[in-house]
Amino acid sequence: MESTTFVLFGATGDLAKRKIYPALYNLFVDQKLPPSFSLIGLGRRELTDESFRANVEQSIDMFSRRKAKNPELMENFLRKFRYSVLNIDRKEDYQKLLRLIEHREEELRLSPNRMFYLSVGPEFFGTIADNIEESGLGSANGWKRLVIEKPFGHDLQSARDLNQKLSKAFAEHEIFRIDHYLGKPMVQKLEALLQSNPVLRAIWANDYIANVQITANETVGVEERAGYYDHTGALRDMFQNHMLQLLMMLTMHLPNKSNSEMVRFKKKMVLENLETLQKQDVSANVIRGQYKAGTIAGKPVVGYTSEPGIASSSLNETFITARMQIDDFFWRGVPIYIRTGKRMQEKSTRIVIEFKEPFKKVSQANDDGQVPNLLVFEISPNERISLQLNTRDPQHSGKFKPIQIDFHDSHEDVPEAYENLIYDAFQGDPTFFAHWDEVELAWSWVHPILEAFQENLVPLHLYAAGTNGPAESDALLAENGHHWWFDSKTQQEIEVNEEELYVHQLNK
Amino acid sequence: MESTTFVLFGATGDLAKRKIYPALYNLFVDQKLPPSFSLIGLGRRELTDESFRANVEQSIDMFSRRKAKNPELMENFLRKFRYSVLNIDRKEDYQKLLRLIEHREEELRLSPNRMFYLSVGPEFFGTIADNIEESGLGSANGWKRLVIEKPFGHDLQSARDLNQKLSKAFAEHEIFRIDHYLGKPMVQKLEALLQSNPVLRAIWANDYIANVQITANETVGVEERAGYYDHTGALRDMFQNHMLQLLMMLTMHLPNKSNSEMVRFKKKMVLENLETLQKQDVSANVIRGQYKAGTIAGKPVVGYTSEPGIASSSLNETFITARMQIDDFFWRGVPIYIRTGKRMQEKSTRIVIEFKEPFKKVSQANDDGQVPNLLVFEISPNERISLQLNTRDPQHSGKFKPIQIDFHDSHEDVPEAYENLIYDAFQGDPTFFAHWDEVELAWSWVHPILEAFQENLVPLHLYAAGTNGPAESDALLAENGHHWWFDSKTQQEIEVNEEELYVHQLNK
Repeated sequence: MESTTFVLFGATGDLAKRKIYPALYNLFVDQKLPPSFSLIGLGRRELTDESFRANVEQSIDMFSRRKAKNPELMENFLRKFRYSVLNIDRKEDYQKLLRLIEHREEELRLSPNRMFYLSVGPEFFGTIADNIEESGLGSANGWKRLVIEKPFGHDLQSARDLNQKLSKAFAEHEIFRIDHYLGKPMVQKLEALLQSNPVLRAIWANDYIANVQITANETVGVEERAGYYDHTGALRDMFQNHMLQLLMMLTMHLPNKSNSEMVRFKKKMVLENLETLQKQDVSANVIRGQYKAGTIAGKPVVGYTSEPGIASSSLNETFITARMQIDDFFWRGVPIYIRTGKRMQEKSTRIVIEFKEPFKKVSQANDDGQVPNLLVFEISPNERISLQLNTRDPQHSGKFKPIQIDFHDSHEDVPEAYENLIYDAFQGDPTFFAHWDEVELAWSWVHPILEAFQENLVPLHLYAAGTNGPAESDALLAENGHHWWFDSKTQQEIEVNEEELYVHQLNK
Repeated sequence: MESTTFVLFGATGDLAKRKIYPALYNLFVDQKLPPSFSLIGLGRRELTDESFRANVEQSIDMFSRRKAKNPELMENFLRKFRYSVLNIDRKEDYQKLLRLIEHREEELRLSPNRMFYLSVGPEFFGTIADNIEESGLGSANGWKRLVIEKPFGHDLQSARDLNQKLSKAFAEHEIFRIDHYLGKPMVQKLEALLQSNPVLRAIWANDYIANVQITANETVGVEERAGYYDHTGALRDMFQNHMLQLLMMLTMHLPNKSNSEMVRFKKKMVLENLETLQKQDVSANVIRGQYKAGTIAGKPVVGYTSEPGIASSSLNETFITARMQIDDFFWRGVPIYIRTGKRMQEKSTRIVIEFKEPFKKVSQANDDGQVPNLLVFEISPNERISLQLNTRDPQHSGKFKPIQIDFHDSHEDVPEAYENLIYDAFQGDPTFFAHWDEVELAWSWVHPILEAFQENLVPLHLYAAGTNGPAESDALLAENGHHWWFDSKTQQEIEVNEEELYVHQLNK
């Protein structure tokens, strides 16, 4: 790994504390940082190097999967850290930064490879990129890389504008757009699992697959992000980026010999083949929801519009289910259901592949207990792969019963998403970052949905906090004879759903 | 369940104590015995009912998976037991037995359904059947059934002779031939697993399967059965019955609607389609072995010919590996390897399905760690289903690593094989018993092997006790590019095998 200077914008921010410092520390312990390494933290606040380091140490103690138990190790780690005040708009500050970087490069005999990590609001991305360019920070005799966090734009046009701004200072291959879902270990394993297992390849086709369900549910509400979230919503905040990335990772068909170029090419193909929803078709395929008051883990919680900082008349969605189709040889005819919501019953990110039951019609009884085969990738909070099969104990009633055959890594100390992603950025490996083409196609795809929401062509269904979203989400799957797997229904939901599904059937 | 009189020949024998009484007791606790039930134990020894019952209770305390903790329950159970002296050759004893049965039937108001369980040596089967017939024991106004233990004949001719004798007194549908491997829970589940899971059906074909391995290994030697075993050997004792039954249960292709008739029909088809080995082909496809002195669990043990009761010049086999072919659409081209041995390294009965790797030739590196997909049914000592897949952690070396996804019943208190089988016999369900057609075809199939062994056309390879059998067993699979899965090699074996496999390759 080449020597690197890590320039961190937003060094006193929340993301840096919770994710970046712990990730760097764990990479250091695992000897996965570049052997010659310098970090320069930037922020608006005046801080001495010492208090900066103290803050970093404290954040590691609080948020790292490994606590700092070895003072000598921590000392060696923190020795690499410097702090510099930077006002994002002030050009002199960039000059000062350049001198500091060069001084450290000389002192530590580092090649001038510089990684600029923008852990700041997206409104600053353009200015920072401009100033990096103008100040000569990126023109040294080494490589430069830009690592940025979501959101990448607010819609198609703003994303294009942003990309144009960044493009002036950085080439596409120098930009590493973080989508932390791509850093999750199970997501990173999907490619290998689907590619290197003949038994999975054999059943990986629309002949065998009944439907695909991708869920990312949270139990939290808007928390401290009300101001941001109320202008964003689940479609922009989760769906356009994380959910579509999961979809691409799951459904791309890699050839046997593959590399990061091929991954990006195949991911792009997924979005290109994703059937576009016309504005008038959105309401038939997309369910929009917003949580009302309810109960989470036995405690009452307020509804979305009663949250501090949220407009009481807000029509912003906190929940979305979409039914999608990929129009290629492999996926034609397989409904893909994607769902994400806040204040849901359970915190869980998972992918469920439901397989067809070719013999159902001729089975001896309807109540023989046979259930579909399922392949399940649990992504968080716990990593797990399981396969649901039917078995039958001939001595007990002769009915089928489902069994789950499970794999979960006993290794509890798996690296976090940010460790994986920062490591890849050090290596210059773009496989698990979002390419501009993907971002642009994803915004294009959600564009008619954003419009339909804006124009109120799609009803906003309220759902009680602590449930699995509005009954209409279940009804959407029921239209195809499917249902969400692993939703444990609350009593409240069962009552509401039965009533609403009944109405739904009457209306069909 | 209909009222039944259970007439047990060999009531003071070892099998009755170890298996039959514990099974009956557990069926009783599970309320799976006929509600009206009478047991009459028969033996040569004079015993009072009371001491017979005391013996039964003691055997349950020693061998039952559930210990008798409830004296009242035990009392109720034992109340059903009577004992009668019987000399197998003495016709008057059968008359006395008939009077006792009828007395109990009247006393307990039982319909005259009688199940004759022959837990005695096979040399007595004919005489007992004759006497049941002659004495009128089986001619009452109810049903009669005959339950018999292995061995069913010593070769094709003796099996036919025995069957002819039994046929005089019992019709085929009245004969329940116990093969206790068919009573094992995992074996009973195989049918449902393979039939009711689309994802398994999809890959259940020679397009996907590289080979099948069926192993039943024991660590014990001949123990107390030397006299019997030295005239029997692994081929007769394990292969002709248990191993071929496992093969049938695994490879039969049941239609979706199935019943016990269909199971027997399809099992028979397996044996009919099993490619016959001509006597001169046996040595190329069958490995014969005999254990020599070695180490089991760190303790030295003697070789087979040094065991008490074994002739020092014995050429009897304690190990056999066979390579087989089923000539039907599903299995054509899939080698099936069957192995069974005594004094092996590990006690284990398992079935391994190894899947093909269609992309091996074009994979990027030979040492990328990718291994074949395996579907494993562990039958004993622990029940387990597992699927071996490849995964890869992109952050760590990028090499593939195998993962096992596992199912094992957490329910530790599974019924034993004899409970399942005796329950089925009470029900009159023949699904998990060996039909005469199967027995006859199995003897026909092994006939040329028996002849080849007899005529010494097949070398007898010695293997050290505590290993995985002779190196030639491994070499047989290596001819097809395969190897036994899950053999953990001893150091001794590695050295021997490398040498012998090298010689083997030179000779090819």
